[in-house]
Amino acid sequence: MDGSSPRPGRSVFVWLVGASQLLGVASVVLTGVWMAILVYRVFRNEAKRNVKVLHGVIHLLALIISIIGIVAVFDFHRAGKTPDMYSLHSWCGMATLVLFFTQWVMGLLFFLFPVASSWLRASYLPIHVFCGLVLLVMAIGTSLLGITEKLLFSITATYSQFAPEGVLANTLGILLVGFGVLVGYLITKEEFRRPPNPEEEALSVHFKTLTEGGTPTSP
Amino acid sequence: MDGSSPRPGRSVFVWLVGASQLLGVASVVLTGVWMAILVYRVFRNEAKRNVKVLHGVIHLLALIISIIGIVAVFDFHRAGKTPDMYSLHSWCGMATLVLFFTQWVMGLLFFLFPVASSWLRASYLPIHVFCGLVLLVMAIGTSLLGITEKLLFSITATYSQFAPEGVLANTLGILLVGFGVLVGYLITKEEFRRPPNPEEEALSVHFKTLTEGGTPTSP
Repeated sequence: MDGSSPRPGRSVFVWLVGASQLLGVASVVLTGVWMAILVYRVFRNEAKRNVKVLHGVIHLLALIISIIGIVAVFDFHRAGKTPDMYSLHSWCGMATLVLFFTQWVMGLLFFLFPVASSWLRASYLPIHVFCGLVLLVMAIGTSLLGITEKLLFSITATYSQFAPEGVLANTLGILLVGFGVLVGYLITKEEFRRPPNPEEEALSVHFKTLTEGGTPTSP
Repeated sequence: MDGSSPRPGRSVFVWLVGASQLLGVASVVLTGVWMAILVYRVFRNEAKRNVKVLHGVIHLLALIISIIGIVAVFDFHRAGKTPDMYSLHSWCGMATLVLFFTQWVMGLLFFLFPVASSWLRASYLPIHVFCGLVLLVMAIGTSLLGITEKLLFSITATYSQFAPEGVLANTLGILLVGFGVLVGYLITKEEFRRPPNPEEEALSVHFKTLTEGGTPTSP
């Protein structure tokens, strides 16, 4: 509850969150889809249950948008008699969507429904966190592959002449990389983690605490 | 020194290292270049100084190979009068090489030369580790972009007909993703970290110990 007290890393954290969101605005779709990954760190002082629900809802929206997107792609292919699923972009994208769907369903079962035991939740949490990061990286990688494909299809002759469309799209790719690096940093840095709250520990336990077999301590 | 005593996660660790290296063999170049990232975890019982030197030497070789590779690319472009640095693949690749070079020089200055104070080393270590992971992901992402470019250039008409070359190259791309995921898991999982050794702590300190301001403990 006293998570709002000033800590050395807090201003750096705020600055980094700002920078990450600035990069994020430049790549709007991905922001909407992916900033949910940050809710536990941004909403440090909200009740964990509410943040969980928010995390679940934002990712459900992202999942729905992804499915609408992929259905549109298949429709577009059918209209133009283009084969499906032949490119590396499509393979990576489909792998990402399947993992994303699995991740969401597992998250719902383990963390929002009172089905899983506290031991099961605790064992699954680090896997969920790691898969979330993998998903972020895979989504960004798939986007870069899509950008490259699109440019080689639509500006085949002028891409190598630094056509403005190519430079713009490359810049978007680099912004996505920067966005991924910043979000990755915010997520992996121990210091920016939601402060442990012993009252909440009984239901949902921290990865580190568990793997080390220790007890939760206040920061 | 008693790091060889059996720990619960050890067999899982061994199995995962095996699996990661199996995937790695399937993508030979990247293995040679990148498995160095694992030396601290694989050689848990060697003196830290030796592992450091090994890590530095393997990455120096990787850096030299990368530079030879990029020089060959520029030569190839000049021979075919192809413009340089216009594609997203080239932008990502150059960013990766510059970061890789910076990372290696910084690593040398901070960790192998007795220049940096123990406080400086400790502050830089988590950044070095994080940048190493970013480099792994960027190198894999750049490879996937290169695969996509190459296929769209060389089998333009047959890629969408599932030409064997396309399927083979896509499979290589997916293997690289799997390799990255496994190495990423091995590197980020606290449990697989080199066990702290108080005698070595004076010179090189662990990230976690530092950020939490605690003292090193035996596992």
